[in-house]
Order: sequence, then C-alpha cells, then structure tokens
Amino acid sequence: MKLNESAAGVYSIAVTPFQPDGRLDMPSVDRMTDFYVGCGATGLTILGILGEAPKLSEEESLAVTRAVAKRAGVPVIVGVSAPGFASMRSLARGAMDLGAAGVMIAPPPQLRTDDQIVAYYAQAVEAIGDDIPFVIQDYPLTLTVIMTPKVIRQIVQNHPSCVMLKHEDWPGLEKISAMRGFEQDGSMKRISILTGNGALFLDFEMERGADGAMTGYAFPEMLVDVVRLAKAGERDKAHDVFDAHLPLVRYEQQPGVGLAARKYVLQKRGAIASDAQRKPSSSLSKAAKAEIDYLLERLARHDPRARI
Amino acid sequence: MKLNESAAGVYSIAVTPFQPDGRLDMPSVDRMTDFYVGCGATGLTILGILGEAPKLSEEESLAVTRAVAKRAGVPVIVGVSAPGFASMRSLARGAMDLGAAGVMIAPPPQLRTDDQIVAYYAQAVEAIGDDIPFVIQDYPLTLTVIMTPKVIRQIVQNHPSCVMLKHEDWPGLEKISAMRGFEQDGSMKRISILTGNGALFLDFEMERGADGAMTGYAFPEMLVDVVRLAKAGERDKAHDVFDAHLPLVRYEQQPGVGLAARKYVLQKRGAIASDAQRKPSSSLSKAAKAEIDYLLERLARHDPRARI
Amino acid sequence: MKLNESAAGVYSIAVTPFQPDGRLDMPSVDRMTDFYVGCGATGLTILGILGEAPKLSEEESLAVTRAVAKRAGVPVIVGVSAPGFASMRSLARGAMDLGAAGVMIAPPPQLRTDDQIVAYYAQAVEAIGDDIPFVIQDYPLTLTVIMTPKVIRQIVQNHPSCVMLKHEDWPGLEKISAMRGFEQDGSMKRISILTGNGALFLDFEMERGADGAMTGYAFPEMLVDVVRLAKAGERDKAHDVFDAHLPLVRYEQQPGVGLAARKYVLQKRGAIASDAQRKPSSSLSKAAKAEIDYLLERLARHDPRARI
Amino acid sequence: MKLNESAAGVYSIAVTPFQPDGRLDMPSVDRMTDFYVGCGATGLTILGILGEAPKLSEEESLAVTRAVAKRAGVPVIVGVSAPGFASMRSLARGAMDLGAAGVMIAPPPQLRTDDQIVAYYAQAVEAIGDDIPFVIQDYPLTLTVIMTPKVIRQIVQNHPSCVMLKHEDWPGLEKISAMRGFEQDGSMKRISILTGNGALFLDFEMERGADGAMTGYAFPEMLVDVVRLAKAGERDKAHDVFDAHLPLVRYEQQPGVGLAARKYVLQKRGAIASDAQRKPSSSLSKAAKAEIDYLLERLARHDPRARI
Repeated sequence: MKLNESAAGVYSIAVTPFQPDGRLDMPSVDRMTDFYVGCGATGLTILGILGEAPKLSEEESLAVTRAVAKRAGVPVIVGVSAPGFASMRSLARGAMDLGAAGVMIAPPPQLRTDDQIVAYYAQAVEAIGDDIPFVIQDYPLTLTVIMTPKVIRQIVQNHPSCVMLKHEDWPGLEKISAMRGFEQDGSMKRISILTGNGALFLDFEMERGADGAMTGYAFPEMLVDVVRLAKAGERDKAHDVFDAHLPLVRYEQQPGVGLAARKYVLQKRGAIASDAQRKPSSSLSKAAKAEIDYLLERLARHDPRARI
Repeated sequence: MKLNESAAGVYSIAVTPFQPDGRLDMPSVDRMTDFYVGCGATGLTILGILGEAPKLSEEESLAVTRAVAKRAGVPVIVGVSAPGFASMRSLARGAMDLGAAGVMIAPPPQLRTDDQIVAYYAQAVEAIGDDIPFVIQDYPLTLTVIMTPKVIRQIVQNHPSCVMLKHEDWPGLEKISAMRGFEQDGSMKRISILTGNGALFLDFEMERGADGAMTGYAFPEMLVDVVRLAKAGERDKAHDVFDAHLPLVRYEQQPGVGLAARKYVLQKRGAIASDAQRKPSSSLSKAAKAEIDYLLERLARHDPRARI
Repeated sequence: MKLNESAAGVYSIAVTPFQPDGRLDMPSVDRMTDFYVGCGATGLTILGILGEAPKLSEEESLAVTRAVAKRAGVPVIVGVSAPGFASMRSLARGAMDLGAAGVMIAPPPQLRTDDQIVAYYAQAVEAIGDDIPFVIQDYPLTLTVIMTPKVIRQIVQNHPSCVMLKHEDWPGLEKISAMRGFEQDGSMKRISILTGNGALFLDFEMERGADGAMTGYAFPEMLVDVVRLAKAGERDKAHDVFDAHLPLVRYEQQPGVGLAARKYVLQKRGAIASDAQRKPSSSLSKAAKAEIDYLLERLARHDPRARI
Repeated sequence: MKLNESAAGVYSIAVTPFQPDGRLDMPSVDRMTDFYVGCGATGLTILGILGEAPKLSEEESLAVTRAVAKRAGVPVIVGVSAPGFASMRSLARGAMDLGAAGVMIAPPPQLRTDDQIVAYYAQAVEAIGDDIPFVIQDYPLTLTVIMTPKVIRQIVQNHPSCVMLKHEDWPGLEKISAMRGFEQDGSMKRISILTGNGALFLDFEMERGADGAMTGYAFPEMLVDVVRLAKAGERDKAHDVFDAHLPLVRYEQQPGVGLAARKYVLQKRGAIASDAQRKPSSSLSKAAKAEIDYLLERLARHDPRARI
C-alpha cells in the first residue's frame, strides 16, 4: 500500500511516547496508534519534528516504525530527514521494508537558492531510490528554507515519486491556490496537499484546495470533522467546529512549548501513558497546565469530546 | 506628558495611511487618529513595523508624528529604530519636540550575544539622550534577536529611561511571568508590559501580568474590552469576547499579508481612505478579501461592531 | 561622465573620515580623495559598508558626495543601499545631481528566493529611475543574500542601467567564470566586474576575467600594480607583488576589526587625520596595532611604499 | 591516553578518504594516518566538518575511528556532533572504547543566547558522561553560533572534562588573548587552545598564546614548523615559513571548495588514493586545479616539500 497523489483526509502527526526516564514507551506506541485511528485518521506520519526524531537512534526509529506500521491499518509516512544521505537512505529503505507507505523529507537549513533546493531533492531521491513515494515538507518558519511554488513544481515534475506536499508555509493560503493553479494550467501533475501549521488555517486551507490535514493537534476528531464538512460543502458548519477549537489550536501551535502542550493533552485523553519528552525537553509550568485545563473546559461546552 | 512605567490599557499600533499613488494621506492620518482614540485606545504607537516606517523619509516621519501628537490627546510612542544612531537621535529628538511621549527601539538583526544586546541599548540611550523614555521591542520572530528575561532586566536596570517592554516573543507567556517575578523578588524595577503578536494570546497575557496590549488589530474595541474585563476579574467574559474575535485575529496576524488585511478592514471601517501601501507592498487576492469578508460576517453575529 | 560597462582598473572603496568626537572630518575627505587618486585609482566608491554609511544622515552623505565628486577627477560611485526606497531614491538622485557617476545597491538581508531578489532590483530601479547607472553588490558573507549567476544575469538583462557587478562572493572564482561565460554564449550583455573581498583573491580573479578591483585595501598601489601586470600578461610578477602584500591583505580583511585596521594604516600613511570611527565603533588593541606595525615592517622589505 | 589541557602542537584535521564510487577507502585511511604523523602531527582529529562526518553512518564512523586510533600512535580526537544526544552518546562512548583520546562537540545552529549555549554543553556532558575529555568547537562562520569568551569560560568552569578549545572564531586574535587573560586572573582553569580557520592567522595566534594548530591544511609540515619556531621565539623565521605558504593556505580556506582543494593536494602528495567526496560533493574545475598547481609550483621555490 504505497502512498500516492490521491491521499486525503487526516494524517495525524504522531508524537513519540517516552517513559519518564527517557526510554521508548512501546506499549504507548500501540495505544497511541489505536487512538489516532480511532479518531478517524486516514493515515499517520511518524518521526517528524513533533516526533522528536533526531533524538532517536536509527534502531529506535525502526522499532517505532515497525510497531506503528504493523498495527495502524492505515498508510504510515515516516520522516527520514537526516544530516547525511547515508542515514536517510538507510532509514528510508528500512522503513519501507517494515511496511511504511512513504517517507517525508525536509530541506536542511543551509539551502538558500532555488537551484540548491531542487538539487537537494534530486540527491535525496538518488540516495533513497526513485521507487519510494515521498512528501516534500515545506515549513519555512522552523526549517528556514523558503521554497517558491515554482521550485516545488520543479521538484514535483522532476520526480514521479514525489506525490505529496506537506504544506506549512506561513502565510500559506495563496500557495495552495498557486499549486492548484499549476495543476489546472497543466504545468504540474496532480499531487496531494495536506496542511500543517497546527491546523491554524485549516478552515480556509480546505477551501483553497487542500486534500486534508497533516498535523499534530491533540483532537484529531476536529480535523476529521472540518475536512469532512468542508468537502461536503457545509461551510458554516466547518467553521463552527473549527472556531470552537481555535483557542486550543492556537495554544498548541506555539513553537517549543507546543509539543509539551500536546503531550499533556494526549496523556489526559489516555492516548499515551506519560507526557515525558526525551532530553533536551521543554516542559509546561503549573500556570501553563492550568491554562490548558481551562481551555479544555471551555471547549467541552461546544464539543463534548473535550470533557476529560 | 512623558511615558512612564504606569502606562496601561491599549496602545494601538497605527498604520500609516497612503494615497494609491504612494504619497502620504494626511487627512486619513487625522481620521485614523480619531478612530483609534474613539475605540478606547489609551495611547498610540506610530512608525512601527506595521507603520511601514522604513519607507518614509525622516521629514515624512516627523510630519506624521506632528499630526498624530497634536490631535490624539493620548500619549504617542514613536518608533525610532534606524540603521544608524545619527538617524535614531535625529528622529527621537525631533519626535519629542513635536509632543511624543516616548520612543520605541527594536534591536537590529545582527545582534546575537547577551552582551551585544545590552551594549546596543546603552549606545542607543547615549545617542538619543537619557531624558527620553523608551520602550524595548522584543519581537524575535521578525527581528531575529533573542533576548532572555535576564538581558531585558539588565537593560531596564541600566537605564532609568527604559519604562516599557513591548512584549511579543513567541511563545511568550512564561516571559511575562519571569519579568513580573523579577519585580517581585526586587531584582528589577517596575516596568509597563504591553503585548503584541497581533493579540493572539492577549487573553492569557493579561492573566500573566500584562498591563495591556500594544498591537494593530483592526478592532481595537476588542482589545479594550478584554483588557478591561481581565482587570475586572471577569475571566470568562474576557475569553468570550476574545474567542469571538480569534478567527480574525489569527487571520490578521499572518506575516506580510497581515498588514494588507488590516488596512483592508480599516478602510472598510472608514478609518482610512485607502488600503494602499507604499512600495514594496503586499496585497490581498480576491480570495483573501472574500475570506476576510466572511470572517467579518461571522464575527458580526457575536459582536455587532463588526457589522460593516 | 556616467558609469558604464567599460569601467576597469581600481575603484578604491573609501572610508569616511571622522574627527575623534564623531563629527565628519571634511578636510580629510579631500586629503583622502587625493590620496586614492594619487595611488592610481581609476575610480572611487564612497558610502559603502566600509564607509560606515548607515551612521550618516542623508545630509552628511550628500556633503561627502559633493566634496569627493568635485575633487576626484575620476568616476565616483555612491552606495545608496537604504532600508526604504524613499531614502534610496532621494540619496541616489541627490548624488547624481552632485556629479556621481553611478550608484551601488546591496540586497537587503531578508531576501531569500531567486524571484525575491530579481523583484527587489526591479523595485529599486523603479524607485531611483532607469537613467542612473547602478552596480549590484554581491556580498553574501555580510549581506546573507545568495545570488546565483543566473539571478545576476536576469537582473542585468532586465535593466539596461545595470552596468557593473561588485563581485565579492566567497568562494567566488567560479562565479566570475560563469558570468563571463554568459557573455560569451550571448545570454548576457557585457558588464564590468570589479572584485572585493579585501582583494584576498585578486591574483586569480584577474585571471578569471575581472576588470579590476573595488575594495578598500589601504595600499591601493598594490591593487593597481596587480591589475596592470595581470592585464599585461605578466603572471608571475603580478603574483609576486600580490604575495608580498597578502599577509596584510588578510589582516585587513577580518570582519569588524578590518575597518579599524584600515583606518589605522591610512592614518599612518597620512591619508586621513584620525582613525576614529563614528559609534558604534570597533577598535584595535595595543597588540593588534603592534601586529600591523610588524606586518608593515615586513612588507617594506619587498615594497618600499610600506616604509612609513 | 586521554586528552588533557596540556595538549599542544599540531592536531591535523583529517579528511575521510572515499573511493570514487563513494565507499570508504580503508587502505587510504591507513596511508593518510601515516602521512599526517609523518609530517609531525602530535595528534589527529577525525570526523569533523572537513571529514564529511554527517555523510557517514555510525558504523562507518566507528570503523574509521578504529583504524585511525589503532595506527596513529598519537592522540585521536573524534568529532561527535550529532542532531540528538542519543547518537552523540553512542558515538562518543564507542569512540573512546576504540581508543580515542577525547571528543569534539560543536554547538547546533539554533543556539542563540548565552544561557542556551551553556545549557547545551551541560546536556551534552550529561549525555556522553563526565569521564570523556571534550573539546569545544567555536566556529561561528560555519556554525552560526556566537560564543563570547565569558560563555566559553562558564562551560570550562562547569565541566572538568572540558580540556580544550578549538578556536576558529573570525576575527579571533582578541579571543585568544581574552581566554588566556581569564587564566591569568584566576577566573578560569588552564585549557589547551588549538586554532583552526585553515591556519589563516596561525602566525599571530601563536603569539597570542595558542598551544598550536588544529586544522586541515594539506601541508601539515608548515604548521609544525610555525608552531615550533614560534615557541622557540624565532618570530621572523616563523613568519617567513608562514608567508611562503599563505597563498595556498588562503586558497584552501575557501568554504565549500576548500575540501576539494585539500583532497586534491593530499592526493597529489600521495596521502590518499582518490580525491573523491561522498555526495553531496563539491569539485574543482579545470581552472581551479590549474590554479592550485601554479600555487604549488610557486611554493616549491621556497619550500621544497611542495615539489610534487
């Protein structure tokens, strides 16, 4: 079941569950996989930035991949961004052997010019092989690499194995319109576009042509609802659901502390046993936890699933 | 009426009104001043990043300062960040002579170490003179300079004329708590803290100890309400007002396109005659305008002031 | 006498002479102009990075331009990089009115993608007018903007008034070859290429096709010699002269402290009255001054002009 | 034989030899080890930036370490900079088990404030264990992290296992003086300072108090000579040797292309079988190779060891 350009719906970006002492928590990996799928996720993305991927050894990365791919029953995308192509290849091929549907590749921060970015993806494809479907991660805020729509188009056109854009430029609405425009004018083949940025703009992203969301919001049910309602043309209802969650969406989207917030909510919801991060870790102050609790309370008035 | 550490409430960050051909629109400067003050602003901040300050000549900057300071009837803070101290001094002293209450200084992007930042503010104070009250602008997302709470404290302690922090670190809630903690443990004198970031976290910023908001949201009435309710201890009501505006707050807070969105709303509300920016300018697509119109419609159901 | 694509030889990047108290030292501006021309400079470039340009008010910038343009008798290029186009236009047109031969424009640090860079130069040309010959400054180490040869070619082709590249990419030898290759394959019109980087690679830059040097080395005589010998095909002699100066060239090319080193040498040589910089300034330790003195002594064994 | 603060002389930064198809060239690893030691190196540093470390798998990194540590007969320092502490610990402990004398740790590029840098080294020491001697790599030009002398002092004082500074700030002479000043005023324990930056300032670095060089210049004999002469107080002779090599030192120090230049010279000198780099690789144009050949020819007039 390889990833292709028809992918749609909600691909939850999964956290990596750790025990308080920093060891992997494999039972929670299973529990979390069930949780995301139970929320209606049509796919899972593991070992991304949210998944604390650089803190894992390759062996651990493959262990997590094996567990999730075996259990999920939905396509699993594996983040394989690495400082060198030897590691990237090894992880990518290992992950596909274990049942992954595709891989995600982020550009390294030193890339600046259009040509450098295009060349990097060519080298990455050469390294992992052109038989592995891959996702471009376009996340300038964190990765500091700016890809114009034209550059993304060129990568897509150069590589048949490029099937998806994880869109999280900010601002990014016009970029979705631009990419879809390339498809309409025939200058680019169809790709799947799933959006990130913590879902902060999912309401309008769907209206601009996204196929769904790929992000780590701790209430994937909302993402599922918004994607479904938007596709059904129920605009107001989609926005109603979205707006009810927006205060928490915004809170979770904070850089750094966002991961701590998400693990805190996921633990409260029973999806993982501990909100521990492997070091170096961020953590929530008592005040921050109380703020999240308050947001959940308020959310529960509109969405009973937030009643914990 | 010089700015001091008791400043509180809402200091609206003002746009700079231009005519479609790029010339200053001085009648709109007056109209806009009246608009902000009419919304309940307790102060105005002009010639900041939102105010397209680097696009103005010094003469134009002083013309805008003269007009606003004369008309506003509330304290006016003038952004004086400049590539060199000669320009900074000239603008700062000129602005104070025209009736400004204080100036705001952002750190230039090349600053990296703690010592460099502290030294820069010392040089700036030497340049403008220690008799001009100034505001530190702490906005790492755009300015790329990261100031720890300890560094801010050192600047505050070094300079009696430092009376306010424009707080827009992101995430930033813990920073407010840290600064107020310094006041409580006696290691830092009291300063005013007004928060920016488009008000995306104003609800909790007030609860953490902010004195108010200094940002450019095009419905300053909401900021005024939230600050007032928060100070009155009406937590739920403050959040209710805030949450109703959050979808638009979020839309306006997008880098780059945010200014275009704000000028579009301000024009619709009659505060300025044209939403034109001086070049290089960002602009709204037809789709983006329709999205804002839709957000205003939805907002109007909760807040009739959005009925335009 | 407007700058055009046939410009060649040595354009000295001039410092700006200040008095110890920070005021402009206009008599030294004259003396320095005579010094550079006396060394054989075929042109002068003022108000660049080395010239502490952002520390000057516009009025001061024009005063320096007036003095140099009147006295030099060789073409004068004026740096007009500014945070906004209003200032850039005002300075550029003012400088041309005072007799400048052309202007130099550096890209602002926030530019990242190819399209952004090309668009910026289009806006700059629109601002200053297409009748003013201009120089692209390509200096990624300091400016953090990376322009590929293709991007430079596009700017050159878009704008007939673009007549010169100040080349200081690092490494940069292949870039000269690439640009000259574009001329040979007919895809780009002829431009003048003068090289910077403190002359650290002037020996080979000439062999790759540069027309000369545009840099601030405090012994312009060496630059003149190397350019002349290289053009005459005296390869070994060119390298001999160059190598004798390389220890000092390298010392002067250090970021930050390089300006202090140059002003120190220029003062020793009698070209300016004081090595003072306007604040914020760098300065030389006693040890650094002794190192420069030692380098001058050693240089004097090979080049009697260094005997001071 | 663990590294300690008395380390001195020349630690050659070793390249990693590859076969033209990208596989490790283990026979060349041996040959190269002999070469460096034969040139008089008192130590070796492997798997640094020059060693293309991120392109190797951990298994390969340990294979290279094993080979070099077994053969060298001098202390071997291993670069263990990694995107996560799990990998860093695994590589560091593996390397020490194989006979390494210590490890080198570079700060990751996202670090900005003083506190972040100090905290990072504390976490790194916690990860690898406080029984492994380590070297701080201070290389802002490439790593983009700026450490003030005070920050380095704090790391040194916090961690007894910190025994050396690989100094390659630029400009950096005052930094050596500052660090030695801390030792003299008793505020910092003695550390070894070896300097990098391609040796571009080795002549004066020795005079400022460095204990030697740690860099990859392809004629380690020159580094050995300069260090020896400087320590013997033979100032003029040290500079004479240095100056003769400076044209090539400068050529090799170019970012990116520098590695290609060094491998080219090392291959010519018989130290490695091929100048191949693992992808993504830089390469030398025909013109660049001719330039290096010419520099070697010229160098051979002063230093017969360059006659190849």
